[in-house]
Amino acid sequence: MINPDAVMARKPEEVEDAIELARAAGVSEALLERMGGYTGCVGVLDTGRPGPVTTLRFDIDCLAIEETKDENHLPNREGFASTRPGLSHACGHDGHTAVGLGVAQWLADNKETLCGKVKLVFQPAEEGVRGAAAIAASGVLDDVDWFTAGHIGCDAKPGRIGVSHEGYLATTKFDLEIFGLPCAAGSPEKGHSALMCACNTVMALGSLPGHSKGITRVQVGKIVSGTARNIVAGHAYVVLEVRGESTEINDYMAANVETTVKGLAAAYECTYKLTRMGEAVTYKGDEEAVELVKAAARDAEGVTLVTDMNAKVGSEDCTMLIRRIQAHGGKCAFFYFGCDHHGHHRPDFEIQDRTSLPVGWGVFTGFVARTNAR
Amino acid sequence: MINPDAVMARKPEEVEDAIELARAAGVSEALLERMGGYTGCVGVLDTGRPGPVTTLRFDIDCLAIEETKDENHLPNREGFASTRPGLSHACGHDGHTAVGLGVAQWLADNKETLCGKVKLVFQPAEEGVRGAAAIAASGVLDDVDWFTAGHIGCDAKPGRIGVSHEGYLATTKFDLEIFGLPCAAGSPEKGHSALMCACNTVMALGSLPGHSKGITRVQVGKIVSGTARNIVAGHAYVVLEVRGESTEINDYMAANVETTVKGLAAAYECTYKLTRMGEAVTYKGDEEAVELVKAAARDAEGVTLVTDMNAKVGSEDCTMLIRRIQAHGGKCAFFYFGCDHHGHHRPDFEIQDRTSLPVGWGVFTGFVARTNAR
Amino acid sequence: MINPDAVMARKPEEVEDAIELARAAGVSEALLERMGGYTGCVGVLDTGRPGPVTTLRFDIDCLAIEETKDENHLPNREGFASTRPGLSHACGHDGHTAVGLGVAQWLADNKETLCGKVKLVFQPAEEGVRGAAAIAASGVLDDVDWFTAGHIGCDAKPGRIGVSHEGYLATTKFDLEIFGLPCAAGSPEKGHSALMCACNTVMALGSLPGHSKGITRVQVGKIVSGTARNIVAGHAYVVLEVRGESTEINDYMAANVETTVKGLAAAYECTYKLTRMGEAVTYKGDEEAVELVKAAARDAEGVTLVTDMNAKVGSEDCTMLIRRIQAHGGKCAFFYFGCDHHGHHRPDFEIQDRTSLPVGWGVFTGFVARTNAR
Amino acid sequence: MINPDAVMARKPEEVEDAIELARAAGVSEALLERMGGYTGCVGVLDTGRPGPVTTLRFDIDCLAIEETKDENHLPNREGFASTRPGLSHACGHDGHTAVGLGVAQWLADNKETLCGKVKLVFQPAEEGVRGAAAIAASGVLDDVDWFTAGHIGCDAKPGRIGVSHEGYLATTKFDLEIFGLPCAAGSPEKGHSALMCACNTVMALGSLPGHSKGITRVQVGKIVSGTARNIVAGHAYVVLEVRGESTEINDYMAANVETTVKGLAAAYECTYKLTRMGEAVTYKGDEEAVELVKAAARDAEGVTLVTDMNAKVGSEDCTMLIRRIQAHGGKCAFFYFGCDHHGHHRPDFEIQDRTSLPVGWGVFTGFVARTNAR
Repeated sequence: MINPDAVMARKPEEVEDAIELARAAGVSEALLERMGGYTGCVGVLDTGRPGPVTTLRFDIDCLAIEETKDENHLPNREGFASTRPGLSHACGHDGHTAVGLGVAQWLADNKETLCGKVKLVFQPAEEGVRGAAAIAASGVLDDVDWFTAGHIGCDAKPGRIGVSHEGYLATTKFDLEIFGLPCAAGSPEKGHSALMCACNTVMALGSLPGHSKGITRVQVGKIVSGTARNIVAGHAYVVLEVRGESTEINDYMAANVETTVKGLAAAYECTYKLTRMGEAVTYKGDEEAVELVKAAARDAEGVTLVTDMNAKVGSEDCTMLIRRIQAHGGKCAFFYFGCDHHGHHRPDFEIQDRTSLPVGWGVFTGFVARTNAR
Repeated sequence: MINPDAVMARKPEEVEDAIELARAAGVSEALLERMGGYTGCVGVLDTGRPGPVTTLRFDIDCLAIEETKDENHLPNREGFASTRPGLSHACGHDGHTAVGLGVAQWLADNKETLCGKVKLVFQPAEEGVRGAAAIAASGVLDDVDWFTAGHIGCDAKPGRIGVSHEGYLATTKFDLEIFGLPCAAGSPEKGHSALMCACNTVMALGSLPGHSKGITRVQVGKIVSGTARNIVAGHAYVVLEVRGESTEINDYMAANVETTVKGLAAAYECTYKLTRMGEAVTYKGDEEAVELVKAAARDAEGVTLVTDMNAKVGSEDCTMLIRRIQAHGGKCAFFYFGCDHHGHHRPDFEIQDRTSLPVGWGVFTGFVARTNAR
Repeated sequence: MINPDAVMARKPEEVEDAIELARAAGVSEALLERMGGYTGCVGVLDTGRPGPVTTLRFDIDCLAIEETKDENHLPNREGFASTRPGLSHACGHDGHTAVGLGVAQWLADNKETLCGKVKLVFQPAEEGVRGAAAIAASGVLDDVDWFTAGHIGCDAKPGRIGVSHEGYLATTKFDLEIFGLPCAAGSPEKGHSALMCACNTVMALGSLPGHSKGITRVQVGKIVSGTARNIVAGHAYVVLEVRGESTEINDYMAANVETTVKGLAAAYECTYKLTRMGEAVTYKGDEEAVELVKAAARDAEGVTLVTDMNAKVGSEDCTMLIRRIQAHGGKCAFFYFGCDHHGHHRPDFEIQDRTSLPVGWGVFTGFVARTNAR
Repeated sequence: MINPDAVMARKPEEVEDAIELARAAGVSEALLERMGGYTGCVGVLDTGRPGPVTTLRFDIDCLAIEETKDENHLPNREGFASTRPGLSHACGHDGHTAVGLGVAQWLADNKETLCGKVKLVFQPAEEGVRGAAAIAASGVLDDVDWFTAGHIGCDAKPGRIGVSHEGYLATTKFDLEIFGLPCAAGSPEKGHSALMCACNTVMALGSLPGHSKGITRVQVGKIVSGTARNIVAGHAYVVLEVRGESTEINDYMAANVETTVKGLAAAYECTYKLTRMGEAVTYKGDEEAVELVKAAARDAEGVTLVTDMNAKVGSEDCTMLIRRIQAHGGKCAFFYFGCDHHGHHRPDFEIQDRTSLPVGWGVFTGFVARTNAR
């Protein structure tokens, strides 16, 4: 289900460390070998009966954010807080995973009422929008007729479902390394400062022109360059992303990044390596799928309100799956299921496992009950 | 005496205008044709007797500075102020010219006491250090044994002669044109802003690294770009200069300018034209020549003090002549003859024609009296 | 009808010149005195009968664009091209004026069928969005119940009317002067370069952050700084504009410009003068007024299609009138009436006076016939 | 001997760690308490006889450079390589220390031949030019009549002594912290990017104007800002230094840094903390002291050549001691004693302990034998 050629931003040392952790946690060598260093899985229920192929996607990855120790924090009170220092599910993907497992249980319990196939995608690396592209590129979803995915929280209040007709900004994530020539500061003519090159590149990237057709965004999130006060820096590391209101606009921005970086490196007599670390496109739902999600939402237990939510902010890499599925004729929709939280990507992010997750579960199972009813 | 291939920053329209002015002032067609649009001249006294070749250089050009109307201004009081609006000799080159003509008179009067040859170079375009390179390249001075030149004013007080052993910064003058792609500001993706390219180029040039072996300098003196608020600028014009404590350092700076400009243009998808508008090197006098100037200065009428003046500031393009002459084995020196002034390149710059010019004349004639005595 | 305190970007010398031109063209001293140096006028038809106050706005200004001499250019063929060198109505405001005069004629002819009041605003200085703010601030439109205005051309094809529900970007136009301290380049420590300050300010403005709620835009259109290669520049002139998808976003951008300019000037030890040269807000029509325009459009002779046109591009300062009128309870709408053209603000911009103008006239008169029918 | 108020760039955690290391290495609690967390010491030999006060200075600190493991590296061959990972004396200060101890032994052995007092300053923190200022400020050297210090290596060949009449660039070392307001990249209007502020500050610092009176230098050696791609950076850390050919020029540069940093922070709505981390001035020796060093050098065993070495490069904080001593009437000189090395501040820097150190020892003891002979 993963096309290794399309995997972005893979760091072999991190993979090795993770395999060791898995081994220490009791994962069998056989399974480790079968996984080949990749996480994520696609579970398929084939009813054996003719019918549509429906796919539900659940992202499973966590963040490099240490969970709060506050004793009032719900996961601390109830004992399901992260057990790994420095890492936690501060964006609710653990809730998504739980919902997906619950859906799998429901599918097993109700398979006699269904026809066609149901694929459950447990996707790694949504953070950084790195994981979906490689799944899409594997072709595992090319036969899909119906698709939905959802996210907990965001602007949705508890008990509410927001169904999205369109939204998300297209985005490309870049890591840039600049290689200059280090030298003693007293003989600046002997070197080429990667630091000066990087700072000017940041200024040039920050002032990239916009686009008449919509929102553009450039964000340089991190810069690290240089070793000591009196050494002309030989290396710089810059982390950035661009976004666009449409995929076309984002492609324009990404192309501009490439041109700018190349020219600035030449101006400072540096070389560089510019790597695409993640990618997502915009979302445009199919009305048939959106209507099915709405219908499932209205019938789901615990839902008090179903609304339209079409904000053109943020990015989601299930859009990479959706683009692929739509290109093969499938119909797709995306929705939000509410919970009470203090903000995503925070140490005190929390979800209500007993009230919020069942609502999401209800929408997913209701969707399948409609698309794949026998 | 001019090598046209080595002429820098020539503007054909200005030449045409100047020819018209000369014609209107009564210059004959025959002379105009003979001059071929070039000013400057080399007068040669050949005594017919064996002996050294000595060259004295006098720069003759003016500045685009309107002379003050202040009635206390000496040239206004005495009736020798500039008669052309917008132009004046605010750096004393008219005084140099007068001294040169006086020296020519002295040579004619005293030729029977001399041997060898004496060449008087009346050089155009010292301002902007544009004129000397083409004279040097003509080869007219390749047989010179002794050379001196002087400048009125600067840090020399009235009655004093400052003789220079070494000094001046090497310099290269550039004009940069950047060609982008203009477009309406509402559709920035359709254009490439020459203005943004120019501003970033200025920042990059301003932050060029220095050199361990001495002073470097970059100065952007002028920028003009764009037409209207809501048009992405298609053109930019940037005027700059670099300097170095040695010719090697200046060459390093000039090479850096070229690399930087090229890279920045590429970064902004612009093209450019970078033109060398002037050039001068550093000065290192020959002790034999310096001593002869000192001796002449000590004996000149009106001189009260002879000092060494070796400031590493400013630039002078007679260094281009000196470099050529020294490469052919000639000996060179440079000196300052003082006057009372308010500062060079000012509307109220003035010189004392009756006291200062004779002192300069005394040094030049005393130099020739020593080098070419029969 | 003009509040002098709210007039932006007024240049007294230009006003003097224009008065002289008017005098030379035979305008009486009495009228010149009455106009007080301001152009524009508000014509009011008071029927004497109770009824609503309706306002139509026609902008009358031209552009600093020389009209083409091409003999195929319609205004050249038919003899109504601009007679003043360097100036022409390259955005069709002469057509707007003609329509307005035609509407005035119609009002005079049909006043017995109308009630209430009709105000015809002939507005100066729409280009640069400078004129409307001062008219709004005069209060002359505070009693308006219905308002409409239109623009010829843009994306509307001949015979078509595009009615706008919402659109336009809010914008603020700035002129920035930076005052440094000029000095000889050889002693850079004696000056403060306005040129370096300006270039870095441009870089900082170019990289202003965006806004989560929509499109932002910064455009520096012009920069002029410095006098000579070897003089540290004492003055810089920068022309720019910001835009925002909402008035709130534009205000955010304009505030950022002020902060940035202030900080950069301090960093370079310069002073500055930042002047607001124009301003426009976004447009949000009132449905009642939009429907009346649509109805008038459908009935107007020569109209082949009525569409909705809601592009969020460009800016229009009738939005300043609309904001004021809406704040007092009036209902407003904006529309486009098509013509065949090669692009606005071009030397060869042309309109079809005999087919396009009547269509616009038909919409305006039909609007009044509906709002102020007796 | 240390004025705590004048200590620069002290990091309490590092001091704590170092105390622990000392304790582990067997340093007694009594000594630790007496040192109070400061290293360095001044040893005084008071002969009890009237006579001059002479001071010799030896710097004792190391660098954060891991020594090479190459077995051909002399310290590895002979067993005196650094035993602490990540740290080594890659600039020869261990050699200076050894020479100082040897001089102390000589003083003890020869005290009967001497008069006056001799102070041996073992100075910490020469790297980063941080240590001398606090010693100078303590007043411990205010009674000094004669002073010398030396450095191993640099441009001096083995067996040669270079005596310096003048040299070194004045320098100030700065650490800059910028505090912005972090926020999610999707809502850039909620934050202020310390990263953008830092990059533009680097560009502005890089393009600081020069000075007519000599060399200026700015070097930004390190920048670290930001945490993640999609977070607007709330903090930036920038490490830089300026230099000047004279103390006046360096002060001008340092003042410009302060002005620039303040303005840029304001432009980006950030706050900042700019800390002086080190300082050194230029060196101008006293001829009497220089001559004594030369005489001592000519007589020292193993010396093959004594030359003048006056390079205006690099910086040395014993200039802070010299400035203080000269202000109180003392006479000072500085010299280099040669060795065979691959370059300072390199993992493979090595000195010849048996041939080079004795030469340095010879100069120091010869100097005292001349200044304080009974």
